[in-house]
Amino acid sequence: MAKSPEQQHPVQAFGWAARDTSGVLSPFKFSRRATGDKDVTFKVLYCGICHSDLHQIKNEWGFTNYPCLPGHEIVGVVTEVGNEVKKFKAGDRVGVGCLVGSCHNCEDCSNNLENYCPKLIFTYCSTYFDGTPTYGGYSDLMVVDEHFAIAIPENLPLDGCAPLLCAGITTYSPLRHFGLDKPGMHVGVVGLGGLGHAAVKFAKAFGVKVTVISTSPGKKQEATERLGADSFLVSRDHAQMQAAMGTMDGIIDTVSAQHPLLPLIGLLKSHGKLVMVGAPEKPLELPVFPLLMGRKIVAGSCIGGIKETQEMIDFAGKHNITADIELIPMDYVNTAMERLVKADVRYRFVIDIGNTLKAA
Amino acid sequence: MAKSPEQQHPVQAFGWAARDTSGVLSPFKFSRRATGDKDVTFKVLYCGICHSDLHQIKNEWGFTNYPCLPGHEIVGVVTEVGNEVKKFKAGDRVGVGCLVGSCHNCEDCSNNLENYCPKLIFTYCSTYFDGTPTYGGYSDLMVVDEHFAIAIPENLPLDGCAPLLCAGITTYSPLRHFGLDKPGMHVGVVGLGGLGHAAVKFAKAFGVKVTVISTSPGKKQEATERLGADSFLVSRDHAQMQAAMGTMDGIIDTVSAQHPLLPLIGLLKSHGKLVMVGAPEKPLELPVFPLLMGRKIVAGSCIGGIKETQEMIDFAGKHNITADIELIPMDYVNTAMERLVKADVRYRFVIDIGNTLKAA
Repeated sequence: MAKSPEQQHPVQAFGWAARDTSGVLSPFKFSRRATGDKDVTFKVLYCGICHSDLHQIKNEWGFTNYPCLPGHEIVGVVTEVGNEVKKFKAGDRVGVGCLVGSCHNCEDCSNNLENYCPKLIFTYCSTYFDGTPTYGGYSDLMVVDEHFAIAIPENLPLDGCAPLLCAGITTYSPLRHFGLDKPGMHVGVVGLGGLGHAAVKFAKAFGVKVTVISTSPGKKQEATERLGADSFLVSRDHAQMQAAMGTMDGIIDTVSAQHPLLPLIGLLKSHGKLVMVGAPEKPLELPVFPLLMGRKIVAGSCIGGIKETQEMIDFAGKHNITADIELIPMDYVNTAMERLVKADVRYRFVIDIGNTLKAA
Repeated sequence: MAKSPEQQHPVQAFGWAARDTSGVLSPFKFSRRATGDKDVTFKVLYCGICHSDLHQIKNEWGFTNYPCLPGHEIVGVVTEVGNEVKKFKAGDRVGVGCLVGSCHNCEDCSNNLENYCPKLIFTYCSTYFDGTPTYGGYSDLMVVDEHFAIAIPENLPLDGCAPLLCAGITTYSPLRHFGLDKPGMHVGVVGLGGLGHAAVKFAKAFGVKVTVISTSPGKKQEATERLGADSFLVSRDHAQMQAAMGTMDGIIDTVSAQHPLLPLIGLLKSHGKLVMVGAPEKPLELPVFPLLMGRKIVAGSCIGGIKETQEMIDFAGKHNITADIELIPMDYVNTAMERLVKADVRYRFVIDIGNTLKAA
């Protein structure tokens, strides 16, 4: 008989998990492995709430295993390291994003793209090498192979830094990979949520002209005044969209709801790139003629590799980029999830794990 | 009152044009401009029948002006050149593809990508700088700005060479631009028609491993034995497709009928590129999750610039690449169009203009 979550490993741990598709999170006792030779163990201080946590706790993607303990925007302080660990020592500031394992042998792993490894192990809702489930960052401690641990720059506040481990790299990586990081370029950002606001910050730091494209006219002031976007388009305003046709080198599309691609493709210059980082459940309509006529591209991008995640956070440190967050106590998490459904957050909830996660 | 096609220009010309959406072609008297300082005038010898000719004569794209005299895979022999012409002299072998004019000022024109110039003038069904309609290659003579004239290598037969001016460059350009031209790569070609068979020939010449993907199992022998493809997949054979998942660096999709993209995206490796060169009239379904999970790309590509067209034909000369054609007389053209609807040609009809176009 399989051991219970409390018995699987020697180190007692505690967090909040969902038990079924209601997605309601509640206190959960489980266990973590002892610090292995290559492992870093750390006390979790903050964990961001990513929109995919919401999908996963409700099994909206169809591959959730319960109990599901989410969280993949995790930061904390190292408490112990294994004998072979080189990058970290006790007391160091450390972060973990979406990945905790990969094969290290495939072409993608060889190219520092563990995020595309076919044997990728996610931070939660996956099965680790030892056959036990992975549990995320809504918990008091983490144990992780040092390869997947990110060093956090000293100048960044840990709470605002947490969301960079997912929302940050998810937007930084495509801006870099698709060459949308050149000063003077014009990049659109569709959707101004957790991902979108990170995309604006990184694109601005690259020296790019940024236009936010949103269904909500009310976000204009936020976008341009607070986040520093250069302009703002209301996607339902035909005249505004028409006037901006053919002006953008690329677009980062963060929207996971169904939405039309035709107007976005129209905003691109010839050879422009529309990069999807949100994941609508159903297929979108792709008009082919407009792609052909301008040799345009629709691409997908999914988080980023570990090397690039470290680069991203070092870049964030250099440019003082953090997420705009609402810090919440652990027991507010279910309310936060309800507000997240309504996109009622600017721009990321972060759970104050260190101060508010208390054993039952 | 506007002048009639016969009176618009000083040089009498003759060809076959469609008068209405029936698309039926019949003899048509018109006129060409006198050879300008930068113009090349040539006697048309052969003209390929592109699938887009069929769309245009029936106004299936909605922007046909009648009379519509199609043909943009045109080769012949220069009869006269203007004072300022440098690349050609009387007697030279010359070709014209889809373009006869562009602005020469925009970013695309500056980058030798006239094919993406917003002021692009097509070889037929467009309006030239002088306000008169452009007429294509189903005609006895052409007058063209030398910038848009292509020198044809001496070793290539003119008839088999004609389709390269459209079908050739349409497939060569994306193979080059999207980096699918590296020896050892694996490229899929969807659809084995005029475009598809050209894609196979160029890809093989680049040293790429080629797999043809088709709905017609009957094309396997042709694809592998005659055209030299390395393998063949029947797109409706789920087991075959499943076995080939994740094996291709790129795919050139030549199909203009509605078809599912999901299986094609599945055939790609991570970071693979699905390039559409056919233009389905209605939007296709784009599943976003599979794009994200492998950082894959769906792109469009439309013919190629003039510099690249010259490179393509020089490459074809070096590698002895021509289209596989069925040479037909001018008065067979309406029957050829009917057969083209049924894809009943291997792989391109070419009209023997020089020997069979006779004034009424």
